Amino acid sequence: MKRNLLLTPGPTQIPPEICAALGRPIIHHRTPQFQSNLREAIKGLRYVLQTEKEVYLLASSGTGGMEAAVANLLSAGDRAITVDGGKFGARWAELCDAYGAEPEVINVEWGKAVEPGQIKSLLDADRDIKAVFVTLCETSTGVTSDIKTIADIVKTTEAVLVVDGISGVGVTDFQMDNWGVDVVVCGSHKGFMLPPGLSFISANEKAFGLIERSTSPRYYFDLRKYKAAFAKIDTPFTPATGIIVALNESLRRFRENGLENLFARYARLARGTRAAARALGLTLLADESCISNVLTAINLPEDVDGGAVVKMMRDAHGISIAGGQAHLKGKIIRIAHMGCVDEYDILTGIACLEKVLYELGYSFTWGAGLSAAQEAFNIDEVPSVV
Amino acid sequence: MKRNLLLTPGPTQIPPEICAALGRPIIHHRTPQFQSNLREAIKGLRYVLQTEKEVYLLASSGTGGMEAAVANLLSAGDRAITVDGGKFGARWAELCDAYGAEPEVINVEWGKAVEPGQIKSLLDADRDIKAVFVTLCETSTGVTSDIKTIADIVKTTEAVLVVDGISGVGVTDFQMDNWGVDVVVCGSHKGFMLPPGLSFISANEKAFGLIERSTSPRYYFDLRKYKAAFAKIDTPFTPATGIIVALNESLRRFRENGLENLFARYARLARGTRAAARALGLTLLADESCISNVLTAINLPEDVDGGAVVKMMRDAHGISIAGGQAHLKGKIIRIAHMGCVDEYDILTGIACLEKVLYELGYSFTWGAGLSAAQEAFNIDEVPSVV
Repeated sequence: MKRNLLLTPGPTQIPPEICAALGRPIIHHRTPQFQSNLREAIKGLRYVLQTEKEVYLLASSGTGGMEAAVANLLSAGDRAITVDGGKFGARWAELCDAYGAEPEVINVEWGKAVEPGQIKSLLDADRDIKAVFVTLCETSTGVTSDIKTIADIVKTTEAVLVVDGISGVGVTDFQMDNWGVDVVVCGSHKGFMLPPGLSFISANEKAFGLIERSTSPRYYFDLRKYKAAFAKIDTPFTPATGIIVALNESLRRFRENGLENLFARYARLARGTRAAARALGLTLLADESCISNVLTAINLPEDVDGGAVVKMMRDAHGISIAGGQAHLKGKIIRIAHMGCVDEYDILTGIACLEKVLYELGYSFTWGAGLSAAQEAFNIDEVPSVV
Repeated sequence: MKRNLLLTPGPTQIPPEICAALGRPIIHHRTPQFQSNLREAIKGLRYVLQTEKEVYLLASSGTGGMEAAVANLLSAGDRAITVDGGKFGARWAELCDAYGAEPEVINVEWGKAVEPGQIKSLLDADRDIKAVFVTLCETSTGVTSDIKTIADIVKTTEAVLVVDGISGVGVTDFQMDNWGVDVVVCGSHKGFMLPPGLSFISANEKAFGLIERSTSPRYYFDLRKYKAAFAKIDTPFTPATGIIVALNESLRRFRENGLENLFARYARLARGTRAAARALGLTLLADESCISNVLTAINLPEDVDGGAVVKMMRDAHGISIAGGQAHLKGKIIRIAHMGCVDEYDILTGIACLEKVLYELGYSFTWGAGLSAAQEAFNIDEVPSVV
């Protein structure tokens, strides 16, 4: 009779209608029936990514999409800028290293965002930089980068701007075309409320200039093959048909709700989560200036083990949140508010967190987190009584 | 009210129990619950691959698994042997080219299998060959290679033997350890009766010797990362959890039925399909000596367009078979007998084929295909009346 609630930053809860779509009989991928699914998916993804460019669907989880970006854009010896302010930003540099490219890594304290000015200085100093790799929402810290300002800088140079939008796109505003982002990578199991195993990549003409010239070995992730196949509403290799069919259920929800409303919804869930953490006497990892609405990373007191919090919430109560990664292992917890999660789910998570913090000996006023969240959720909507 | 029957060589029909598993609520991949699913999947896959070696699960379709083999085993300039006797054998050479390796391509007429002696001659002539890439069942032609004999040759050399088992493993006999195969790649959407989006790769110690030394760029498909993670029953990147959970439903069927019985079942379905084709006056593409039990490729008369056969069967009757690929486009049809397909499904397919051939002006005796299949299905089991 235990609840099974995922407040984890990927995978996220899958709504029952999407679960049902995943259980439908398989369709063959070389048929008009699949083509109509693919056409609809591309159209819906363009809406969510706010782009008119091509969007390619890869059968891989998010890292496969990131590798596609690096392998297609960079050749061995090429220089690039990456930002290491968390586990996923660091992955861009690892990928560059794997392909023999030379990343200039901007190290940022975990919990802070990159200063766009730093990117500008590096670009000014080295006109041969081919690409700048940044992260919309750094899942390991709950920090959002100022992509718009970074894009304004990068677009005046020869370099392309590549954004890891895996946990951010569809949850927080991201305007590929208006901002002038050249490449974005997304994944299925975050804001899109699907199982992992599908990634999306969109690239504009500037990016395709590099893609055509890259000498890096690539085949399964070769975007030239995707470009040729997608022009005929086809895929170069067997696609992840099951998830693509279900994606259209997800995209319908995006269209029905409207992006603006979804972003406002997640902002509200984030506001409540932050208020709850503070009311429990806890601090937030991310700086106020760059805190994300996608997930909230909460610092724990020294004597509370984050691993135990996660384990107890999950095993005793069926409520999953995430712990810290790398040097923050055991020191923080991360509560996601993306996808199919509402304020009652967040309240449930906070109630459970209170229970578990109490069991671990932490002192606070019962219900303080809940009340603060409830107030934060509702304060903008209910007129105050005079 | 149209039937939806897939007799295609991937994707194959998904049994309702597996569809239901695909529709289950998502589980998080960094939990004991997922670990127990992964442990069970590895155990089941070892049974099907007939190996005690590690089996790694990649979130990709089959070609991703093939790329993993090439990128991990070969470095630029390395020499290899590939067999081009169909579209998927040709893919090995394309992958070698993509990584700057130098494939020595053995060209084989489509419908024939490679002569193991040819591989021996090439290996004898060049002691520096690093790998031999072959295909268990060539999906474009319905030909099975003699992997056991090839393995006997390759195992006496420094080269590793890599088998594309994507459409063959689980359908036709494949004994990784007994035969001495070094690497095998499989996919989820053929004999395993799952949606595409998951591939499996197993590699032995000899292969890991090359894997540790390869200088090819790789990250998402880096088998060193998989080896390290799987040793802890973990995955290096977000796995395709949804398909992995359903895989265990599929593997249960393998264990319950027994491999030998499944192979006999598919052999019987193949026998019936071949008998039907011949009774309709049609010939088979694959040579009798190397014909596969996985799928049957049937030559069409010159005045019958294979594209029309496939389209009419699918659009008017809801029964999907495959057409020819590359230079055989329009000239053959391919009927698969893998996965969740029984003799009544094959009879259904043949009945529909008769209908459509008739509509396209081809002459034959009504029911000739059906009777021949029925006889071939049952002849070994029912004692003849004296």
